Amino acid sequence: MAGSAGQASLREANLRLVTALVYASDEPPSRAELASASGLTRSTVSRLVDELVAGGLLRELDPAPANGRGRPAVPLAPARASLVATGAEVAAAHVSVRCIDLSGQVLAERRHEAHLVGSDPGMVLAELGRTLASVHDQLPDGVRHLGTALALPGLVERGTGRLLQAPNLGWRDVVPAPLVTGAEVVHVGNEADLAALALTQRRPGRPSELIDVVYVSGEVGIGAAVVRSGQVMAGRHGWAGEVGHISVDPTGPTCRCGSRGCLEQYAGRAAILRAAGLPEDTPPPDLLRLADDGHLGVRRALTRAGWALGVVLAGVVNLLDLPTVVLGGDLDLLSRHLKPAAEPELTSRVLSARWVAPQLLGAGESDSAAGGSVGSPTATGAAYHLLGEVLDHPAQHV
Amino acid sequence: MAGSAGQASLREANLRLVTALVYASDEPPSRAELASASGLTRSTVSRLVDELVAGGLLRELDPAPANGRGRPAVPLAPARASLVATGAEVAAAHVSVRCIDLSGQVLAERRHEAHLVGSDPGMVLAELGRTLASVHDQLPDGVRHLGTALALPGLVERGTGRLLQAPNLGWRDVVPAPLVTGAEVVHVGNEADLAALALTQRRPGRPSELIDVVYVSGEVGIGAAVVRSGQVMAGRHGWAGEVGHISVDPTGPTCRCGSRGCLEQYAGRAAILRAAGLPEDTPPPDLLRLADDGHLGVRRALTRAGWALGVVLAGVVNLLDLPTVVLGGDLDLLSRHLKPAAEPELTSRVLSARWVAPQLLGAGESDSAAGGSVGSPTATGAAYHLLGEVLDHPAQHV
Repeated sequence: MAGSAGQASLREANLRLVTALVYASDEPPSRAELASASGLTRSTVSRLVDELVAGGLLRELDPAPANGRGRPAVPLAPARASLVATGAEVAAAHVSVRCIDLSGQVLAERRHEAHLVGSDPGMVLAELGRTLASVHDQLPDGVRHLGTALALPGLVERGTGRLLQAPNLGWRDVVPAPLVTGAEVVHVGNEADLAALALTQRRPGRPSELIDVVYVSGEVGIGAAVVRSGQVMAGRHGWAGEVGHISVDPTGPTCRCGSRGCLEQYAGRAAILRAAGLPEDTPPPDLLRLADDGHLGVRRALTRAGWALGVVLAGVVNLLDLPTVVLGGDLDLLSRHLKPAAEPELTSRVLSARWVAPQLLGAGESDSAAGGSVGSPTATGAAYHLLGEVLDHPAQHV
Repeated sequence: MAGSAGQASLREANLRLVTALVYASDEPPSRAELASASGLTRSTVSRLVDELVAGGLLRELDPAPANGRGRPAVPLAPARASLVATGAEVAAAHVSVRCIDLSGQVLAERRHEAHLVGSDPGMVLAELGRTLASVHDQLPDGVRHLGTALALPGLVERGTGRLLQAPNLGWRDVVPAPLVTGAEVVHVGNEADLAALALTQRRPGRPSELIDVVYVSGEVGIGAAVVRSGQVMAGRHGWAGEVGHISVDPTGPTCRCGSRGCLEQYAGRAAILRAAGLPEDTPPPDLLRLADDGHLGVRRALTRAGWALGVVLAGVVNLLDLPTVVLGGDLDLLSRHLKPAAEPELTSRVLSARWVAPQLLGAGESDSAAGGSVGSPTATGAAYHLLGEVLDHPAQHV
């Protein structure tokens, strides 16, 4: 029953509005509360909610006890185990896969450490396809799968999903989606940009407190996402956030990117382990343990990394006036050893620090989904990207 | 004749729409063309245009020759010499005042070099008040004056207009507006943020080609504005753009801000003159002449400044993926000597440079009002700020 273009788009807008109100709510609202919050009539809301429940976007909870008159109100909440998205991350030192439903519940996941520096993209992505297939086998019957969003540590071309360069994987000019055999990769994006989606939301559609932040995620490489009013600033081509290649000391050590003195050569995993005199495959938790035990070489390496991080982040805060910086990945894990060296640089180098002191926060300390998914904020954020598309266009699913 | 709130806001929205269409147009549109572009009826457009002409926001040009049937069309253009705003800039080395009308025409101006490093705010601003009064005396009879917007090189508190700190003036915690006796200062803002308004527009309300850029303006200090989709990103508190205090070399020379190795210590005016072995009051045009004549010390100082600029701007482009950088002030004047040292740093340090080469452009080379107002883009932008408020709220003026 096709209405006019005007009716169709009005229905779409109303479905989006009702969906957004339920997903952003602290407490599951009733139809009457949705009518009041949206300005729509009670009967319009009821019809829209019925469609969204039938389409698997909302679920009805047990009615609250009746308050004396009329039928008891039925609270409405994000649906569970109906529409499911997969987030996958290939990083230089791990692969992570997560299947998440609209309520933010993780239905299946897999994570393993790996050594993918200088790896072959075809082999790695075929292996990822097998991992995805086995994780998808664990999903409950009856869920509708939205596909997989793939996060990579490098420059991804918008539109085509081509990876132009990922220095730490050593990959160049790769179109990843068709290489992930056995799984449907519907989106490819930069890891920090996708992780930021887990940082700015507690669960899909519900904002966290972190809406004006710089998120800096470190592992082998270091990437960042600039978030303003809850939106990731991807830049002109989607390539923003390459903090790992901001100069600490322009005459410093040579970087994998071909330049010199980049932040990664001070605060990237390989640089820290090298400075600490440890083997390059030392797992980060071992590094943390040594630091906690007072290992002098490790302490010195982390002080140098924290100092470099402070110098670069002071520049970022001077440029953007976003005085909350959230650390992710290794930098989150190691944050108690990095902060003492980073914070004095922020305080002394940020021109406005005497009025608003810049704040360094570990992702694990936050109220966001990234805090709740320590170790896999990027895979979480990648899944959130696809779930967010459902919330933006609910009419396509009812 | 007060209508309902709904009618009033509809009228406001329509006045704004018609105003925006005329101001953004290449060619002055007729009422019929405005009706077609806005989707409003011919009679509604005619009524709104009549109000805007009477209110001094639009003017009617000579009718085009009739095309055979009906009355000849009357082209509509931005009004001249009706509403006028003043932009004033106090910088460390000059004071500049410009009165501009809605068409972008400069009706009166004054600029003089000055040595205001370590100056007294009360004396400087009282003197500015006298300058403003004498410039305003030159305005034609019958213009309506919107007040003065004041641009300062430092951190300005949003809302209160308090200057927290301007390191190169040596001013701290000053509320400037009441000190400008004899003139009505209605807005105080950061100089680079205001200059960016002259960069992103050819004339008030008409966008230039520069909508995704970083604008870096250098004189004694160095400030910047980050412009995304034509909007200046002011940051959380309005303090974004402090590139002058981004580190080039964290162990470098001590800066006026208390930190070390800041960009200003390489590419600020005093640093360049010191490195060139010239007196600190050498005017920039003399510096340019010496460089053009091949003076070795000057050439070396400008190479060092360009190199430092390249290192810092490479970091900015890596972070933001805004690959067009526009140089203003001294940096514009000296750009042909700075670019050869800056560009190789941009090319080698920006991770995405092999796909999209970052571009360094002098403001004077652009199609913007900043290009057309060499020497006073900041005062121009400050006046544009007030003129832009008229275009955003035309109902308040008709």
